[in-house]
Amino acid sequence: MAGAVQLGLLTLLLLGASALADRYTPDWESLDSRPLPTWYDEAKFGVFVHWGVYAVPAWSEWFWYFWETEKDVEYTTYMRQNYPPGFSYADFGPQFGAKFYNPKKWAEIFEASGARYVVLTSKHHEGYTLWPSNTSWNWNSMDVGPHRDLVGELGPALREKNIHFGLYHSLMEWFHPFYISDKENNFTTQNFVKAKALPELHDLVNRYKPDLIWSDGEWEAPDTYWNATEFLAWLYNDSPVKDKIVVNDRWGMGNPCNHGGYLTCHDRYRPDTLPKRKWEMCTTLDKYSWGYRRTMESRQVRTDIQILSDLVHVVALGGNYLLNVGPTKDGIISPIFEERLRFVGSWLKINGEGIYASRPWRVQMENITTTENNNITVWYTTKESAVYVFFKTWPEDGDLHLTSPVPTENTKVTMLGVPDFLVWSADPLYGFIITLPPLSPAIANMKFWTLKLQGVY
Amino acid sequence: MAGAVQLGLLTLLLLGASALADRYTPDWESLDSRPLPTWYDEAKFGVFVHWGVYAVPAWSEWFWYFWETEKDVEYTTYMRQNYPPGFSYADFGPQFGAKFYNPKKWAEIFEASGARYVVLTSKHHEGYTLWPSNTSWNWNSMDVGPHRDLVGELGPALREKNIHFGLYHSLMEWFHPFYISDKENNFTTQNFVKAKALPELHDLVNRYKPDLIWSDGEWEAPDTYWNATEFLAWLYNDSPVKDKIVVNDRWGMGNPCNHGGYLTCHDRYRPDTLPKRKWEMCTTLDKYSWGYRRTMESRQVRTDIQILSDLVHVVALGGNYLLNVGPTKDGIISPIFEERLRFVGSWLKINGEGIYASRPWRVQMENITTTENNNITVWYTTKESAVYVFFKTWPEDGDLHLTSPVPTENTKVTMLGVPDFLVWSADPLYGFIITLPPLSPAIANMKFWTLKLQGVY
Amino acid sequence: MAGAVQLGLLTLLLLGASALADRYTPDWESLDSRPLPTWYDEAKFGVFVHWGVYAVPAWSEWFWYFWETEKDVEYTTYMRQNYPPGFSYADFGPQFGAKFYNPKKWAEIFEASGARYVVLTSKHHEGYTLWPSNTSWNWNSMDVGPHRDLVGELGPALREKNIHFGLYHSLMEWFHPFYISDKENNFTTQNFVKAKALPELHDLVNRYKPDLIWSDGEWEAPDTYWNATEFLAWLYNDSPVKDKIVVNDRWGMGNPCNHGGYLTCHDRYRPDTLPKRKWEMCTTLDKYSWGYRRTMESRQVRTDIQILSDLVHVVALGGNYLLNVGPTKDGIISPIFEERLRFVGSWLKINGEGIYASRPWRVQMENITTTENNNITVWYTTKESAVYVFFKTWPEDGDLHLTSPVPTENTKVTMLGVPDFLVWSADPLYGFIITLPPLSPAIANMKFWTLKLQGVY
Amino acid sequence: MAGAVQLGLLTLLLLGASALADRYTPDWESLDSRPLPTWYDEAKFGVFVHWGVYAVPAWSEWFWYFWETEKDVEYTTYMRQNYPPGFSYADFGPQFGAKFYNPKKWAEIFEASGARYVVLTSKHHEGYTLWPSNTSWNWNSMDVGPHRDLVGELGPALREKNIHFGLYHSLMEWFHPFYISDKENNFTTQNFVKAKALPELHDLVNRYKPDLIWSDGEWEAPDTYWNATEFLAWLYNDSPVKDKIVVNDRWGMGNPCNHGGYLTCHDRYRPDTLPKRKWEMCTTLDKYSWGYRRTMESRQVRTDIQILSDLVHVVALGGNYLLNVGPTKDGIISPIFEERLRFVGSWLKINGEGIYASRPWRVQMENITTTENNNITVWYTTKESAVYVFFKTWPEDGDLHLTSPVPTENTKVTMLGVPDFLVWSADPLYGFIITLPPLSPAIANMKFWTLKLQGVY
Repeated sequence: MAGAVQLGLLTLLLLGASALADRYTPDWESLDSRPLPTWYDEAKFGVFVHWGVYAVPAWSEWFWYFWETEKDVEYTTYMRQNYPPGFSYADFGPQFGAKFYNPKKWAEIFEASGARYVVLTSKHHEGYTLWPSNTSWNWNSMDVGPHRDLVGELGPALREKNIHFGLYHSLMEWFHPFYISDKENNFTTQNFVKAKALPELHDLVNRYKPDLIWSDGEWEAPDTYWNATEFLAWLYNDSPVKDKIVVNDRWGMGNPCNHGGYLTCHDRYRPDTLPKRKWEMCTTLDKYSWGYRRTMESRQVRTDIQILSDLVHVVALGGNYLLNVGPTKDGIISPIFEERLRFVGSWLKINGEGIYASRPWRVQMENITTTENNNITVWYTTKESAVYVFFKTWPEDGDLHLTSPVPTENTKVTMLGVPDFLVWSADPLYGFIITLPPLSPAIANMKFWTLKLQGVY
Repeated sequence: MAGAVQLGLLTLLLLGASALADRYTPDWESLDSRPLPTWYDEAKFGVFVHWGVYAVPAWSEWFWYFWETEKDVEYTTYMRQNYPPGFSYADFGPQFGAKFYNPKKWAEIFEASGARYVVLTSKHHEGYTLWPSNTSWNWNSMDVGPHRDLVGELGPALREKNIHFGLYHSLMEWFHPFYISDKENNFTTQNFVKAKALPELHDLVNRYKPDLIWSDGEWEAPDTYWNATEFLAWLYNDSPVKDKIVVNDRWGMGNPCNHGGYLTCHDRYRPDTLPKRKWEMCTTLDKYSWGYRRTMESRQVRTDIQILSDLVHVVALGGNYLLNVGPTKDGIISPIFEERLRFVGSWLKINGEGIYASRPWRVQMENITTTENNNITVWYTTKESAVYVFFKTWPEDGDLHLTSPVPTENTKVTMLGVPDFLVWSADPLYGFIITLPPLSPAIANMKFWTLKLQGVY
Repeated sequence: MAGAVQLGLLTLLLLGASALADRYTPDWESLDSRPLPTWYDEAKFGVFVHWGVYAVPAWSEWFWYFWETEKDVEYTTYMRQNYPPGFSYADFGPQFGAKFYNPKKWAEIFEASGARYVVLTSKHHEGYTLWPSNTSWNWNSMDVGPHRDLVGELGPALREKNIHFGLYHSLMEWFHPFYISDKENNFTTQNFVKAKALPELHDLVNRYKPDLIWSDGEWEAPDTYWNATEFLAWLYNDSPVKDKIVVNDRWGMGNPCNHGGYLTCHDRYRPDTLPKRKWEMCTTLDKYSWGYRRTMESRQVRTDIQILSDLVHVVALGGNYLLNVGPTKDGIISPIFEERLRFVGSWLKINGEGIYASRPWRVQMENITTTENNNITVWYTTKESAVYVFFKTWPEDGDLHLTSPVPTENTKVTMLGVPDFLVWSADPLYGFIITLPPLSPAIANMKFWTLKLQGVY
Repeated sequence: MAGAVQLGLLTLLLLGASALADRYTPDWESLDSRPLPTWYDEAKFGVFVHWGVYAVPAWSEWFWYFWETEKDVEYTTYMRQNYPPGFSYADFGPQFGAKFYNPKKWAEIFEASGARYVVLTSKHHEGYTLWPSNTSWNWNSMDVGPHRDLVGELGPALREKNIHFGLYHSLMEWFHPFYISDKENNFTTQNFVKAKALPELHDLVNRYKPDLIWSDGEWEAPDTYWNATEFLAWLYNDSPVKDKIVVNDRWGMGNPCNHGGYLTCHDRYRPDTLPKRKWEMCTTLDKYSWGYRRTMESRQVRTDIQILSDLVHVVALGGNYLLNVGPTKDGIISPIFEERLRFVGSWLKINGEGIYASRPWRVQMENITTTENNNITVWYTTKESAVYVFFKTWPEDGDLHLTSPVPTENTKVTMLGVPDFLVWSADPLYGFIITLPPLSPAIANMKFWTLKLQGVY
């Protein structure tokens, strides 16, 4: 048990050293040993929200960098054609209006999507904070632009819907003068960390008591520069969220996939074998940007079936799936994003039984061959005594042949969303054969199907 | 015979009958007698585009009216909360940037939708013209906002794709001082018509040579005020588009559904019995607005099946279907609109055979009863010797019973998109029974199915 | 007798000569015969106000022309460096805020300046009207920018101070499409005149009942194009201001200095001999611009002594002096302009006796030689029986020698602002010698001095 | 001797007194003992420049405070009437364009004014820095608004004209979150000082090597909070400007008029008896604001004579005179300010001999009675062997009676600007009587006259 308290000598004698030993020490061995709070693994599906001043140019959350550092010709041309010479990124600030930002409406959409947690970019690499940070004066959402505490307004709206509230936070800020000079000093100085990164992390935790911190922007400097282990030790031992807080693995160069809370490894990480530790795949509805992109075309938006394919795969392999939307500068979630989210939610309403709080089964996926010699991939999860089978290709003859599950005489098979038990047979040659229900338009519209096997091993 | 005029025998003898008989006279009897150019009836499906300064506030194309005339509390509150006192509608003008307006991209989307014509609002009731109109100085897209000829750029892009180019034009302008004073004079003066409405109509025709004029804004004044019959006589007799031009029926109070070219009657007009003359249903993807609406939610967008239901119904009853999108102030067609349009196009690629250039059959629609006693509606069209049957409810037993078509021994039945002939039978009790192909996900995804009957009467 | 018309004897007998003789006919002979209302000649000093959208770029009232037509490099560079590509002149409109426009404050300043009339640019060559003109929809001060009737608010404020209210009006508009096309037609068409110029002139007269119309922008077309004589005939015969209205001479190519009301000939017209008809010199405090110029430097502002030199010269030669200020886009009269105007007013408070309602004397100016052989110029005016002498060089010996006035034994001489009679003598050699009062700082600060001679001839 | 430190005798003996004695210790006794670099006392006349984001609303440099803290009704009304709700002070930033900022032009004007030093507000209480401060990211002139280093551009331009370059710096920032929290902690924490005030002072000194630091904003906290003595010790001992730097006395609550460099005591400080230490009167051309004020009226600008009265009085009493101008957001020095400055310069060109590098005489001012029993005030300065007498009232009889200077037989008297020696007499009854030259307009225009007495005691 963490959380140091002053205890009398007797207590110490009675409880022994272990009481104190429950405090995490600021090193990865200790920090990595902390069990992840259970809510996170059970949640499986979350929504990521990338929002900031980059919603004004609305090209990508990396707009500033591609424009000013990379001097990408597409970006510089756009600026030259549409803004007066000398226009700076900071000048976009007042145009970030968030005029229609309605956290209750967002929460309703997220709830309808079936997401059990939401992660908002409290601050991206641009440094603009979506809350009134003391260390980001005149470059935050209260002083410039919306004149509202965007972070502070979203938390309660989510919690009213029983959705966990996570905060993305970029350690690094491309253009912060302190960061630039620390970098020039090969990170032997820590002015930026002490004046900005750490005060803001503490402020976020103390003010908003998030359930999750999604750290990012760590890659140029070692965790010792960021004082990451000290921060995490405080977070796990003494912070007001020490019991529920979940963090990811981006706390310093070389950390991702190695240390921290759950693993994110790299953007769109999607392993094909079961990782050792809890992990998360984050990806985004707009295939080309995390932040809102004005010129996004319909075919650049991930489709329903692509989303379900990722979700099922990720959950079968023990991961969580964090799907991103980038709201407009007005604070609107684009209808095409909303439609996708609502579809996922409608699918989860029926199929979520095999997703939420499930665990990987002994086999996570397998390719099976149909009678017609086609290949069909199925994924497995398990919860309590049931095994769930997911597939997205409907066998032409309506029979699904499974290789791994072993039926017994008590075996019962249903398709989620369909009332009756399905007929099955165990064939020495063809294995466990399940006769699917006759296809109807309603069943076809499900796009990805879930069988529930009971009494198998 | 067109343009009938009653002339004394002497005149006929002097001028020669044929010369005069080809000319239309400025009265409805003559004008109504003009045969509609055939391209229009064959086109069946068009896209309507509502674009103007109203894309800046982005609430509805009626923004100005609801704000300033109706003083609707939602509109006035929005203005009060987001703009300085005294901000006027004209002040929105410079913000109408059209920064990403790409007519080639629009044309590509419209082509992909299967639309055979596109109608752009050259000017809505706000009076702002999307072309450099001489009579709308400093209130047009060249002088204020985009600094481009939005109309002029779209035409060639469409024509390159063999899409007909139509122009919507509002006769009336809510706030034009001349219109207001003509109205106060009970339309006994025609200052507005002479200074604005007619010069602009002529300018549009002479400059852009449109295939279609979609007149609107006629309702407060009689066609005599608008000099409508004179304009149409010129259009049909002498204009550079006299052979191909198609117009609608909104040319004066009381005209719609009575006079002009094809009938539109009222917005979203969708009759259930066959009208006497060619007609068009116009409707919009956003259920609540024709212009772009920033706060549009996904469930406020017409669904694929709603669109197909309208399209099939309208075509079966001899109409054309004009489906509206409202681009953003940047000139972007919202991805959710694009996705709908592309879906319609993919459907038409397979099912368009029964749509384009089809004619109403002797029966347009009927309700049939399935074996399970459910009701299924089917619609009919015909082209050459074939009859096409459309339905959106898949009979549970896979048999479709038709009442009206009478099979013969040469009857052949196919489903569009499916290679093989279908089995059918003629039953004295149950009529003409067609056994549908087994349902697959691919067939289910079609959402609306078309049978082609050959050799029936 | 005004308005001579050639009528047959019979007509005269029938109608009665007096009735018709009072009416002016639309030709210069008749119109030029109209006596100028007396208020104008008595006023002597007026303030000209150039205000419009050009106060936004604030370079000169010709900004648009030098930028877009001349493509002057200074202007195009400024636009390129400070505005996005494609920014148009009309886009300046919403920035013309007039936020601090206070007509009462203006009127107080003009009153303090001693001006007896004020001429405001109701519309300059840019076409933007400072009143809600029906024929300039969305390009006027009510629809775009201030959202106020700038003309309508100034009139009453001036009249409360007994200052006459004049309106400048540009016949021509550089970029009006109608004007451009009339010009391309060598002014054989009059679309612009009928749709714009004349309706606006009538509107101005009927709405604001000005005392003076200061016409301009006439030079490219003959008065027959402008229908100028018809307009003036109406103005003099039937308009609501027929008795008091004063106009200038800019009504068509070749008119200035020849026809109309008083003569302005050309900007800054300042003859050195007595013109035949009443005339006016207009000039501007900012030597380089009539409209407000942001980069104006102090030494580019006409000085007190330069102003008085013009004023005295002009009045001595029978003219009026119209001195221009260009307010800022906020509606502020720049303090340096205000200071100059107040100085003129303080000078007129003492010396105005010899200015207002004065007439040219038989000699208007002469150079006199001082005892020290310096040259001093003096100017003369007269009113009732007095002769006024103006000079700006103080003779070193304090004696002023006049050549033209002939003293008598009843001659009395005073200096305006100084209580006592001055000593004078008549010398056969040196003429009429006046001993000035001893110079004090107060007298020195007057800068220009006025002697009043009584009993001279 | 400066920099007294208490050291044990032994240490002194060992190290040698001189080495250590040259260093100042961080206490007032030591710091106050530093002799002021001589350039400052000799300069006498400087120009103060208040420029910052407050030039955008252009009401006063205290705009933000009166609007947001005082909620002054005039300010809140202005904001409500002209900006959308929620508009913040930071939103003004991008409008601070400095489009016409031309440091060479400024320097030319300041040189023409006769100023020997210029003090620019590098940062006012609003916190916005006019240079790219690392600790004011996105709230400085490089990131937001002008996109230029306003401080850095002015320095070289001034030095090219041999004008000393001073920097105003506000210790305090009204709305900086750190300052607010330090204040809430009764200044027991120093987060603001360490993160902002001191780093910025060091940065200014190291980057721009100013000749003068004009500290302000000290009044709410003791100098111990500001670490003022430590900063000054560094400045005097080790900084790159240690030999030439001059500072004022605003370094902590209670400091003004007591400690520091020269005394400013309070704004517009103008004592009537000789202060013990070098002092400065700062005042502003606009009587009501230091920052540019759009609504400034001509009579609210200090007049030539008011300026000279202050200048002469201040110099006679041993002070320096720092006269303020507030440039516009465009970077323009308003012509009325420029005119005043040029007038002062033209006066100094003639009369500066008695001003620059002068010292107070044994009598600084006295009232003398004229023959006509009027009172005339005269002021004295001295330089080398001459005594200078200044007066602004011209005695009616042309004789100036002085009480304090005692003439000798070698006494010579001239009026600056007038070539000849003046006649004088020493009268037992009336004292030292000087016969002024005859008044001419040129002499009268001087407004304030200087006599140079040689050979008096």
